[in-house]
Amino acid sequence: MHFEGSEKKIELIAQGAAFRQKPPEFWTALVESAGAKILSKISNEACDAYLLSESSLFVWDDRITLITCGRTALVKAALFLVDRVGEKNMDFFSYERKNEYFPRQQQTDFYKDVKLLQKTMKGSAFRFGSFDEHHLLLYHMEKPFTPRGMDCTLEVLMYNLEGASKEIFSSDQTIDRVRQLTKLDKIFPGFQIDDYLFKPCGYSLNAIRGTEYYTLHVTPEDPVSYVSFETNVHLCDVMSETLKRVVEVFQPRSFDVIHFHPDKGISTLDVKPFVRRDDVRQNLDCGYEVAFSTFYLSGTRQAKALEINL
Amino acid sequence: MHFEGSEKKIELIAQGAAFRQKPPEFWTALVESAGAKILSKISNEACDAYLLSESSLFVWDDRITLITCGRTALVKAALFLVDRVGEKNMDFFSYERKNEYFPRQQQTDFYKDVKLLQKTMKGSAFRFGSFDEHHLLLYHMEKPFTPRGMDCTLEVLMYNLEGASKEIFSSDQTIDRVRQLTKLDKIFPGFQIDDYLFKPCGYSLNAIRGTEYYTLHVTPEDPVSYVSFETNVHLCDVMSETLKRVVEVFQPRSFDVIHFHPDKGISTLDVKPFVRRDDVRQNLDCGYEVAFSTFYLSGTRQAKALEINL
Repeated sequence: MHFEGSEKKIELIAQGAAFRQKPPEFWTALVESAGAKILSKISNEACDAYLLSESSLFVWDDRITLITCGRTALVKAALFLVDRVGEKNMDFFSYERKNEYFPRQQQTDFYKDVKLLQKTMKGSAFRFGSFDEHHLLLYHMEKPFTPRGMDCTLEVLMYNLEGASKEIFSSDQTIDRVRQLTKLDKIFPGFQIDDYLFKPCGYSLNAIRGTEYYTLHVTPEDPVSYVSFETNVHLCDVMSETLKRVVEVFQPRSFDVIHFHPDKGISTLDVKPFVRRDDVRQNLDCGYEVAFSTFYLSGTRQAKALEINL
Repeated sequence: MHFEGSEKKIELIAQGAAFRQKPPEFWTALVESAGAKILSKISNEACDAYLLSESSLFVWDDRITLITCGRTALVKAALFLVDRVGEKNMDFFSYERKNEYFPRQQQTDFYKDVKLLQKTMKGSAFRFGSFDEHHLLLYHMEKPFTPRGMDCTLEVLMYNLEGASKEIFSSDQTIDRVRQLTKLDKIFPGFQIDDYLFKPCGYSLNAIRGTEYYTLHVTPEDPVSYVSFETNVHLCDVMSETLKRVVEVFQPRSFDVIHFHPDKGISTLDVKPFVRRDDVRQNLDCGYEVAFSTFYLSGTRQAKALEINL
């Protein structure tokens, strides 16, 4: 059985929640409810960043971002949060699932998840992209919300890696050597870094600077290699450059970009030599515009079939 | 729940089997073992063609082609056949599964199917294409076989239909009107036709002429519209024209082509304005070269997200 890199994600904003004052047991219980474990934690004046056995948790006073992969049931963590925080205290809630390599290995599907969530709050569900291609499933609470002007997130989800970085992550390495070869700890300057090399392979990185974060999760194994990069750094004009830099490290065959932004009219991205295939945009009632784009290397790939060893 | 158009397929050759002499109960039991039903039958001097509630069965004296879609468990029909025919009497056996829109709704997955099949015969399994994109899973019996020179099949699997044909199949029609509007009964001349309009929608067509057949299965419903076309007509120089014609009727956003051929070096296809993305070829020990190609309309598709009504 291959490891599923594709992620699920919760974003919760509750302006009066004082999340960082919750005791450590709260976060342990939250993460374990989804089937993951906390491996380590870094903190600064504004944010606690937890590195998990399956991805990451970021906690600010007024908000939480929880990302998990593998076979975790993140919907359970969502129900845990709604139960503890209370729907009436929640200002914004979203729940995402990326299309999975192996949907049958998951504990639940998005539709079952949404039915559970709808018992606790009024919400809407959307699909960005086609069912037979890369796509995003998104549920959000129906409650009017006005995000701050700088409150945006960018996700870059990369598939079928090629080139040097794949070798780096597939072989026996040290953290120092990975940092040195990939410079992933220096995507933006001045960030505090926490990273982890999994055995036999896999790599996670959390990085924080004030309220800003970026996080990377690398699942390098063929035939389902996958990397996610996510950040809330306000990129404006440098978005294409940041994308290009991340994509250059991993050399994926294709990648998807998910962009949450409070302003309408997200700018169009261009990442040569990739070709953009899908450009799906939606204004959500909860205050954000969401853009989902898929990018592919153009040209025909000639290959042999892959023999499946059973 | 949407209807799954993606198909599974068995091809069995047993030169001494005299399949057409089997009693009707044999075919009823075979088809029902997979969870489908026989709707009608046409015959000529060489072939019996059964239209099924989920796709089609073709029977010749020395061979069978059985195609099913929906939630059928075609592996059960494969086990039924191996049990009744006997592995030692089988000259060629293959079992295909196309990537599904909704893998979780299937009764089994390919890996479980193969484990069952391997208890009855020695075989090999292959994946054509990437797990995160359109792909084909293929199992075949490991037994040397030399197919006849003209023994080839072409499958064209079309996704996300646009244009007039979709309207035709989604609205209330008569068989005569469908034939008149689409001319699908005249893809090749001189064929005997058997077709069926499903309620509320869906269309199947079987066509035979001597040992030749073609078959079409249309699942027009958004957001998982799908059409398969398959034939054993020896196309040689007209393959591109046939492809183009079928694709023009349905105007898919993308389509895949699967080509079984006894000769090595299948020619390269070109179907403008589509761009070929994957070109996966494999020589199988059982005597065929198999080519799997994916085609996409080039350009960016701008769209809104689709709201999911739960």
